[in-house]
Amino acid sequence: MPRPVISLLTDFGARDPSAGILHGVIRTIAPDADVIDISHEVRKFRIRDGALLLWCALPYLPVGFHVAVVDPGVGTARRPVAIRMARGDILVGPDNGLLLGPADRLGGVVEAVELAAAEYRLAVISSSFHGRDIFVPAAAHLTNGVALEALGPAVDPETLVASPLVAPTLGNGALATEIVYVDTFGNVKLGALAGDLERALGTLVAGTAVEATIAGTRRTLPWAVTFGDVAAGDPLLYEDSYGRLCIAVNQGDAARVLGLVEDQPVILRAAG
Amino acid sequence: MPRPVISLLTDFGARDPSAGILHGVIRTIAPDADVIDISHEVRKFRIRDGALLLWCALPYLPVGFHVAVVDPGVGTARRPVAIRMARGDILVGPDNGLLLGPADRLGGVVEAVELAAAEYRLAVISSSFHGRDIFVPAAAHLTNGVALEALGPAVDPETLVASPLVAPTLGNGALATEIVYVDTFGNVKLGALAGDLERALGTLVAGTAVEATIAGTRRTLPWAVTFGDVAAGDPLLYEDSYGRLCIAVNQGDAARVLGLVEDQPVILRAAG
Amino acid sequence: MPRPVISLLTDFGARDPSAGILHGVIRTIAPDADVIDISHEVRKFRIRDGALLLWCALPYLPVGFHVAVVDPGVGTARRPVAIRMARGDILVGPDNGLLLGPADRLGGVVEAVELAAAEYRLAVISSSFHGRDIFVPAAAHLTNGVALEALGPAVDPETLVASPLVAPTLGNGALATEIVYVDTFGNVKLGALAGDLERALGTLVAGTAVEATIAGTRRTLPWAVTFGDVAAGDPLLYEDSYGRLCIAVNQGDAARVLGLVEDQPVILRAAG
Repeated sequence: MPRPVISLLTDFGARDPSAGILHGVIRTIAPDADVIDISHEVRKFRIRDGALLLWCALPYLPVGFHVAVVDPGVGTARRPVAIRMARGDILVGPDNGLLLGPADRLGGVVEAVELAAAEYRLAVISSSFHGRDIFVPAAAHLTNGVALEALGPAVDPETLVASPLVAPTLGNGALATEIVYVDTFGNVKLGALAGDLERALGTLVAGTAVEATIAGTRRTLPWAVTFGDVAAGDPLLYEDSYGRLCIAVNQGDAARVLGLVEDQPVILRAAG
Repeated sequence: MPRPVISLLTDFGARDPSAGILHGVIRTIAPDADVIDISHEVRKFRIRDGALLLWCALPYLPVGFHVAVVDPGVGTARRPVAIRMARGDILVGPDNGLLLGPADRLGGVVEAVELAAAEYRLAVISSSFHGRDIFVPAAAHLTNGVALEALGPAVDPETLVASPLVAPTLGNGALATEIVYVDTFGNVKLGALAGDLERALGTLVAGTAVEATIAGTRRTLPWAVTFGDVAAGDPLLYEDSYGRLCIAVNQGDAARVLGLVEDQPVILRAAG
Repeated sequence: MPRPVISLLTDFGARDPSAGILHGVIRTIAPDADVIDISHEVRKFRIRDGALLLWCALPYLPVGFHVAVVDPGVGTARRPVAIRMARGDILVGPDNGLLLGPADRLGGVVEAVELAAAEYRLAVISSSFHGRDIFVPAAAHLTNGVALEALGPAVDPETLVASPLVAPTLGNGALATEIVYVDTFGNVKLGALAGDLERALGTLVAGTAVEATIAGTRRTLPWAVTFGDVAAGDPLLYEDSYGRLCIAVNQGDAARVLGLVEDQPVILRAAG
């Protein structure tokens, strides 16, 4: 039987020892757990970034226990929660909007609890490192067979904080969304999927010209199936490897070349 | 029986292959060892940083073999050592001050040896990568059951290089220390623990005003139990999740906002 | 029997979830594989960097399956390949020059195949993430015992794209090469080995003066066995821990101090 999997996604950074400490706590409570680091370099306090990256990753991870910590409200009244998803996974983290987008990706929330049971936390709870003291111990105990319900009282899923990943709007032959993330290649991710654009514009084929109005500036971008459809240095609009709309520059840094930044509004319509 | 644990802390950086090579050498000598990366992004040559981060991490790791390499003197006469600690762990690394602070955290040094035995090093010893050639092989052989004493001659613990983590001084109702680290959130760590400040000022409660003189500039900081005790953007003094005194800004970067840098002297006393 | 080893080297970066996703895909297909991350911070699209770092790492990894992805041509006609090496390892990645230098390090290419078999890829192949969809699944299936030949048609090794790591030239008592990499310490790696310099200049001993003409500027550098052979802050020429010629500054950043950058031509001859 394969070892149970715990994945970790945090904004703790690679320089500080925090991520390694999470591994140490897991290893102490659940020596057989297999830990996968999704990222510890989520930008500080960027809940939407964390939600998006976890949304990307979860379909490619085995069913398991996924701890996500981007937690600007650590030590305040925000609830620590664990959520069972339809696929069978359990998401663990702060109830601050980080978890619901990723949860949708695995079939949605089946049940949720607040992490209140003292016996499944560390003995001393700090005010600033709940990843170590509350979240990771919960996941480790779950891999040991502790029932979700034992971790604390049920939480009504309707009361969980909504995702900052907002659905795009369609109308008048246009798709309205925003820039939600710039990846480490400089590719610019939008808050909409390729399927959304097809609903607005009809079937997309390589070379279809799309008019993109970004923060008021109009550009025409070719729809491309692969980066190599355009010359090196040229921009393109494509479906990224997660089904998401993305603006890129072949072998270049689109955000820098095109001057794009997160949160800019984007309107896409047929060109011409 | 759980697999033996080797932890790694270095300043090798994530871009170069050095950290991966340590894993490869361990995997070759001790296929059953379980490796935990504490950090490979300790700033280059910063022995005090490495000592502090290891000090933070060790209590949360299982008893094991901990290799630490921040080693500006690699290839010179500084001794490669392994140190048994009271908790049962063995620390492996250069004798340059990196190890004694963390060793204190696990009960102090029980015995030490110099890593001299050729059969527990790689066959060829480079002048610049003792992590690969000497330190990690020693740890891997230890997990295989090799006795500490087999690694080389005993070292008198009294001769080990002292820690750069200097104890604070108390007197006249004040605590004198310095800034020892700025973490990746911009939180400013001092060279003293919350217990030290309580010895100087008495019991601390949320809202207690503390006067902090940092590099000659006087500020009043509220003692806070949690970041949320102050408004977003406001500074605070608190006990971090390791028991250490720390200056932070709620949801902000304290080092940048307050203009604080490492090595600045800090004097704390009751305000007013 | 030890678990099979898969190593990973990519330019995906630590912030994005791509590297974690590779772990997830491996874990799903081959739960018993043991994964070693060599680096995910290779600079974007730098094929020569990736080739060099893999060349450094492979001799220190156990015989296994090594996936390398630095792939500016992803989605174009460049072939995805797997290459069996004389040592017994299999290298997996794009046929763009990334693999042959490292392959030489393990005895050279024995046989190669193109990764064409649909049953050993993910069900959906994106245009931009072949690491996830093609390369890592191939390696994972190989660890499960799938034969190399089952992955696709044989490729004539003579047709594989040549390495960007170019051999140095010797003549007239000089060695001509170039700067190929600056590591995270600022050490400057050349495209030649210490053995090459000995063939040009005869036996090197500590203190031998070597004249280095770099991008037209002449300097005299002492040959050093260890950094400590020169004063802190002084430059030196030495054999790095992989047998490669390297220019460094004792406890300093040679690239910054000496103003050296990659691709600058370097001519070394006896000084005086």
